[in-house]
Amino acid sequence: MLRGLYLGRFQPYHLGHHEVLKKIATEVSEIIIGIGSAQISHEIENPFTAGERVLMVSRAIEELGIKHYVIPIEDIRRNSLWVSHVMSMVPPFDVAYTNNPLVIELLGEAGVDVRESPLFKRNSYSGTEIRRRMLENDRWEHFVPGKVVEIIQEINGVKRLRKVSQSDDE
Amino acid sequence: MLRGLYLGRFQPYHLGHHEVLKKIATEVSEIIIGIGSAQISHEIENPFTAGERVLMVSRAIEELGIKHYVIPIEDIRRNSLWVSHVMSMVPPFDVAYTNNPLVIELLGEAGVDVRESPLFKRNSYSGTEIRRRMLENDRWEHFVPGKVVEIIQEINGVKRLRKVSQSDDE
Amino acid sequence: MLRGLYLGRFQPYHLGHHEVLKKIATEVSEIIIGIGSAQISHEIENPFTAGERVLMVSRAIEELGIKHYVIPIEDIRRNSLWVSHVMSMVPPFDVAYTNNPLVIELLGEAGVDVRESPLFKRNSYSGTEIRRRMLENDRWEHFVPGKVVEIIQEINGVKRLRKVSQSDDE
Amino acid sequence: MLRGLYLGRFQPYHLGHHEVLKKIATEVSEIIIGIGSAQISHEIENPFTAGERVLMVSRAIEELGIKHYVIPIEDIRRNSLWVSHVMSMVPPFDVAYTNNPLVIELLGEAGVDVRESPLFKRNSYSGTEIRRRMLENDRWEHFVPGKVVEIIQEINGVKRLRKVSQSDDE
Amino acid sequence: MLRGLYLGRFQPYHLGHHEVLKKIATEVSEIIIGIGSAQISHEIENPFTAGERVLMVSRAIEELGIKHYVIPIEDIRRNSLWVSHVMSMVPPFDVAYTNNPLVIELLGEAGVDVRESPLFKRNSYSGTEIRRRMLENDRWEHFVPGKVVEIIQEINGVKRLRKVSQSDDE
Amino acid sequence: MLRGLYLGRFQPYHLGHHEVLKKIATEVSEIIIGIGSAQISHEIENPFTAGERVLMVSRAIEELGIKHYVIPIEDIRRNSLWVSHVMSMVPPFDVAYTNNPLVIELLGEAGVDVRESPLFKRNSYSGTEIRRRMLENDRWEHFVPGKVVEIIQEINGVKRLRKVSQSDDE
Repeated sequence: MLRGLYLGRFQPYHLGHHEVLKKIATEVSEIIIGIGSAQISHEIENPFTAGERVLMVSRAIEELGIKHYVIPIEDIRRNSLWVSHVMSMVPPFDVAYTNNPLVIELLGEAGVDVRESPLFKRNSYSGTEIRRRMLENDRWEHFVPGKVVEIIQEINGVKRLRKVSQSDDE
Repeated sequence: MLRGLYLGRFQPYHLGHHEVLKKIATEVSEIIIGIGSAQISHEIENPFTAGERVLMVSRAIEELGIKHYVIPIEDIRRNSLWVSHVMSMVPPFDVAYTNNPLVIELLGEAGVDVRESPLFKRNSYSGTEIRRRMLENDRWEHFVPGKVVEIIQEINGVKRLRKVSQSDDE
Repeated sequence: MLRGLYLGRFQPYHLGHHEVLKKIATEVSEIIIGIGSAQISHEIENPFTAGERVLMVSRAIEELGIKHYVIPIEDIRRNSLWVSHVMSMVPPFDVAYTNNPLVIELLGEAGVDVRESPLFKRNSYSGTEIRRRMLENDRWEHFVPGKVVEIIQEINGVKRLRKVSQSDDE
Repeated sequence: MLRGLYLGRFQPYHLGHHEVLKKIATEVSEIIIGIGSAQISHEIENPFTAGERVLMVSRAIEELGIKHYVIPIEDIRRNSLWVSHVMSMVPPFDVAYTNNPLVIELLGEAGVDVRESPLFKRNSYSGTEIRRRMLENDRWEHFVPGKVVEIIQEINGVKRLRKVSQSDDE
Repeated sequence: MLRGLYLGRFQPYHLGHHEVLKKIATEVSEIIIGIGSAQISHEIENPFTAGERVLMVSRAIEELGIKHYVIPIEDIRRNSLWVSHVMSMVPPFDVAYTNNPLVIELLGEAGVDVRESPLFKRNSYSGTEIRRRMLENDRWEHFVPGKVVEIIQEINGVKRLRKVSQSDDE
Repeated sequence: MLRGLYLGRFQPYHLGHHEVLKKIATEVSEIIIGIGSAQISHEIENPFTAGERVLMVSRAIEELGIKHYVIPIEDIRRNSLWVSHVMSMVPPFDVAYTNNPLVIELLGEAGVDVRESPLFKRNSYSGTEIRRRMLENDRWEHFVPGKVVEIIQEINGVKRLRKVSQSDDE
């Protein structure tokens, strides 16, 4: 039995994440999805709450039929403590999947087995691109799983993103 | 579809919690289990990490066959913010189950539907009693689900509890 | 022109505080009332929020007819920073009134002019005594100004205190 | 009786704020002025302490002859907790006045009645513009109430702003 | 070359600590002294600031003639992060000396070589006993190195301890 | 006897710092070196941990033959508390050396004697320039003391800097 950890902010969860998880599901028997910056929401780069992102990931991952854990992880804001922080919040894991260079360095220094996760259509399957499309009223729905589209609509997510992206000079 | 929230520290998860969850499972279609004081561990009253407790709850709840979310929740240490904090970390819920009077008051002031959870063999199905038994080398294994016994043994939990319960006057 | 600082938690504001303020009002021309532990509420020793306490103090002090500032002050939890913290949150002051020995020591080390505030009927004009009476259904209303009684009734304060004073062994 | 909340950073309090407050004073019977980012000072965008800003606002608002509360509010740095945080620090209010899109969204999601505050000479009545003028030795005094000019002079505010605006490459 | 870590709160540094350091000095070539709870002071159990304790330790250790580092370490309040926190604040070390059971457990779980430090006249060479004597006007000076006595006198430490040990019921 | 305080981030400690310390050593009899932003590491502008920087400074300063204290100082993130924070962490000092305008203002407002530290070859003896050279594979070793070069090599510091400087668009 092998347990793998996959980390992301999932603002929002999109088909790029989904393809990675499908690939990981062929290598491990249990997947932990860690939702980073859990305490942050209502920002232009981070519109959704941790709870909303838990729902997105949980709904989308069901179809993979693999045992999974979806865990919000608050920022610790100290790189030297980050690995211990993550390890205290999630079940023990054997391998971590990520493309984030800082995370690779931190996990590597701690002796964790890290595998770079494959990339899928990097230009479109990207949180930045999807949020840009939401803001500019472009089509974004085909870049995220159908169940995630539903959740974003239910919580009025696009309206929220547009509102918080406006600036104000007091 | 009704989603219920059940909160606890689960130090450790025991059969009292399990009976409550079985009962809740007859009233809702999805259960969120919020693991409180997630950032605390290695204390006499809180020996286990959030990740270890996620594993305990997840393993034990599988047999109930109900859709569930197991979410660590760090303390916010400000009662007036606590409800908003919990709501930001978990998916939306319709009803909360708890016996904690402070939690009942806080959720009540916020207009949340709160139901007092039933109690089962309060004297023995209690984290305090189970930790006392671990410390005094009494039998405790029959008060927690078998899968939780396994996890506690794997992580050498009783030895840890005994160590951190010793005091030191510098 | 002399500005005086008077610090307290005001859980709740009572006639002992009121007598002190009347006395201070004869010595200075402006009074700053600092409401300590502003971030704490819904506890047996701290039932009321900072906002509720601001309202209590403001309503009660109006009759004194003295220029005043009512300022919530969050705890800084580091004694060595406490004086700087208070000074950053309130307008400049010439003299501080307090009976708290730690506050006297900290302000004294920082070179602030500290005067011990007079005490009035210490046994009954005491937050501890008033909260005990609320819990035990004794008369407490004659120990606080009438406007404060009204506020506590409006926010259902006694019910809240009783609820959060109950304990729960998970 | 209607109580209104008006939020700002007031770095410094200027005639634009003052015009808004005059307008609000015609709609409510009591005004709460919340001073945001209370813990921040000695920065190029935030030169003044909360205590200094309390003094500015209090001095300026006296002439309006309306019952008011001037409350410093420290940042909570979590948007999902912000509304609860503000509500715990100020007396209950019926309506909030603001032009900040994020604040509008957060208060709106929480069901608070929000009114956009009118704008007066946005280009000159602006904290950014006033601080720019202070830095570049332009006239700024005609953009803030006379009593605020006095306070800034007493605390040597322009010198402080110039000093903290210098950069240093270690 | 071997570098050893010795941890304590040093409230104050006493001859018991000094004997331990002498012993450690025979086993390693460099000693790191970590001053715990660095952010705490002006409390009955923690009267001295980190800076004052740095001075005590540095003055006393000079006579040992061993290369040393005296490092204040703020509390991290999360046991699962504590080892990483300490390791980020001090130079790399080969062995840690302590008698604190929690520290032994935490360092042990992290794979650090821990040696229990010898005890010397535990009843009198104890911070608790020395602070008790200071409070009760008993002789305490013969339990701490002469240079530490001087420092405590210079900062008026006994007076401070007595002041902060008084209680106040508001 | 005069004790001087010298503050910096020392990312890394370089010959510019070293020249300043040599100069200070002619004016005071004891030097405190405060290592700022102690809690930050593994960032492009802050690659090294506090412990690594303590080691760099300690190794390099030995040759000056002056009594010294090397003290990590975590950020307090509130300018109005910063002076009190520093003073609580280091032994009492008579004069502070710095070129940072904010630090000059804050220490000045607190009445501390501040001297601007001399600058040596500002363009090359600069942390920014040295980190740029590390990233671009230019020679950097001649800008830092030999013992610091050794430490950076032992901890694989250049590789770490390169890794954490890569960006990732999730």
